[in-house]
Amino acid sequence: MTIASIYEPIQDDLIRVEESIKAFCHANDYPWMADFMAYILEDGGKRIRPAVVLLSGKFHHYDPEKLIPMGTAVEVFHNATLVHDDSVDKSSVRRGKPSAVSLWGDSVALLLGDYLFASSADFVCATGNMEVTRLFAQTIMKICSGQLKELMGAYNWRRGRTEYFQEIDSKTAALFATSAQSGAILSEAPRAEVEALKGYGHALGMAFQIIDDILDFIGDEKDLGKPVGSDLLQGTVTLPAILFSEKHPEDNPLQRVLENRGDHAQVQRFIDRLRDSPVIQECYDIAAGFTAQACRAIEALPDNASHHSLVGLTDYILERRK
Amino acid sequence: MTIASIYEPIQDDLIRVEESIKAFCHANDYPWMADFMAYILEDGGKRIRPAVVLLSGKFHHYDPEKLIPMGTAVEVFHNATLVHDDSVDKSSVRRGKPSAVSLWGDSVALLLGDYLFASSADFVCATGNMEVTRLFAQTIMKICSGQLKELMGAYNWRRGRTEYFQEIDSKTAALFATSAQSGAILSEAPRAEVEALKGYGHALGMAFQIIDDILDFIGDEKDLGKPVGSDLLQGTVTLPAILFSEKHPEDNPLQRVLENRGDHAQVQRFIDRLRDSPVIQECYDIAAGFTAQACRAIEALPDNASHHSLVGLTDYILERRK
Repeated sequence: MTIASIYEPIQDDLIRVEESIKAFCHANDYPWMADFMAYILEDGGKRIRPAVVLLSGKFHHYDPEKLIPMGTAVEVFHNATLVHDDSVDKSSVRRGKPSAVSLWGDSVALLLGDYLFASSADFVCATGNMEVTRLFAQTIMKICSGQLKELMGAYNWRRGRTEYFQEIDSKTAALFATSAQSGAILSEAPRAEVEALKGYGHALGMAFQIIDDILDFIGDEKDLGKPVGSDLLQGTVTLPAILFSEKHPEDNPLQRVLENRGDHAQVQRFIDRLRDSPVIQECYDIAAGFTAQACRAIEALPDNASHHSLVGLTDYILERRK
Repeated sequence: MTIASIYEPIQDDLIRVEESIKAFCHANDYPWMADFMAYILEDGGKRIRPAVVLLSGKFHHYDPEKLIPMGTAVEVFHNATLVHDDSVDKSSVRRGKPSAVSLWGDSVALLLGDYLFASSADFVCATGNMEVTRLFAQTIMKICSGQLKELMGAYNWRRGRTEYFQEIDSKTAALFATSAQSGAILSEAPRAEVEALKGYGHALGMAFQIIDDILDFIGDEKDLGKPVGSDLLQGTVTLPAILFSEKHPEDNPLQRVLENRGDHAQVQRFIDRLRDSPVIQECYDIAAGFTAQACRAIEALPDNASHHSLVGLTDYILERRK
């Protein structure tokens, strides 16, 4: 399925999320602030998280007046995390454009990110639903503590799969899970279906991050909008590097790469060896395990167009090149 | 009134706020995270904002189960802003100790601040009250946009009183107003009293910030826990500097100080001249105008111990030396 056909059941309301983001960017007295926010938020990515909110809301009382603010909230929040991530990682490029931090410096990026965090909370409050509001606050806590853990664990070549899966659960899967779960809650789905959709979101998010981490090694710089090997250069040890390490317990090349931080040529040789190894296919297999888990989680849900789209989204995520 | 006698009507619950902060610091799996948070949050300041929440809740159905999480929320949030402020201002000292950013660097300070922001939102959600939750989110937005405006306006010697008052309303008075207002809302006060207490909090916060800005010029480095003249060295133009500028329209010494950023000796001469001028007394008079406004705002409230404490707090704030 193409992304357009996946989004078909919710396309009108996804446009309303887009309009709501646009209105938010321009709803303040300071033209420079509107410029900052439009730069960060407009034309920014595939809007997968709001799509998950809307699709997950399609199984019971679909209420756009609640689901559109919720979709806006997760997208604004996601972009807030990207602004702060780029500060932490000192990344100069995001989606093929200069990052906020590289354009405006650390202080502006920090405060703009804070403003976007607060605004996302305000959008969640606009749902009027205390349960999703609290869920959202706790999700932000989980994401922030996950990012702190990642930072504290940087350059640790001893990191294994368990730590990796815990970390991507916090930093990525949690927001996908909350997107699906809140769509279900806001459409008054019964508890079992709320849990099913939460499970779907979690597994989808795990697969999403694994693919992201694969693409960081094998992707095309133009498609990615950032340099290949960025993670490793920043000391972030992801699944491909972990699997490659596991295969070389005696003379671990990852250890050497991380211990000689500045040596870009060595990083490049590591990337070349990894790309030629079976590790990439093994990572794809693990991601496919998570997308299969996502589909199983919602098996019992009604067989409607949105169900097909949620399943289609798992394939789309697995096959994406950027 | 001493601070102990001001806090007397709420002293037990203020201790419970303290315990709630302590429990929060230590309620996670990572000892390093608990250490970080305890360093930032424990023994940290006078807890004026939670005291305002609790005292404002004393006029109707005082409910500690809601007011204690709310008091915890405003204090945790306040400390989150301090962590990020110190990053933005590159301040190495906070309350006489090394600041978070100077100890652990920009990235950890950024993510810890984010985590504290999210946690404060979670505490607000624990009140179960949608109105205060949304009010809180909008207050964070106001504070962040105020800080952004301050940053964008740094080193602007043309700044006048109007911009200054707008900025301290956003960056300081807003949280005092929300503390008082949420105390009132959570104790089911009638609308007129909610507005009265909000007005009290706003005026108290304005006075609080003006005194802060005076102390930055005339305070004792040991009492302040930071160097005298920090604001000006960071390009922040506050009320004393604005009033001093107004008196020298022809040959503005502030302009020279801000145009020669690195010249600490020149800053010191400016501070010496300002301290010897009538400007400090004029700033105190303006702050006293705000504390009088705070007392007038709550005139119609019942004449009980908490009312006396709220009035006592205005004097305390006016007379504080740190």
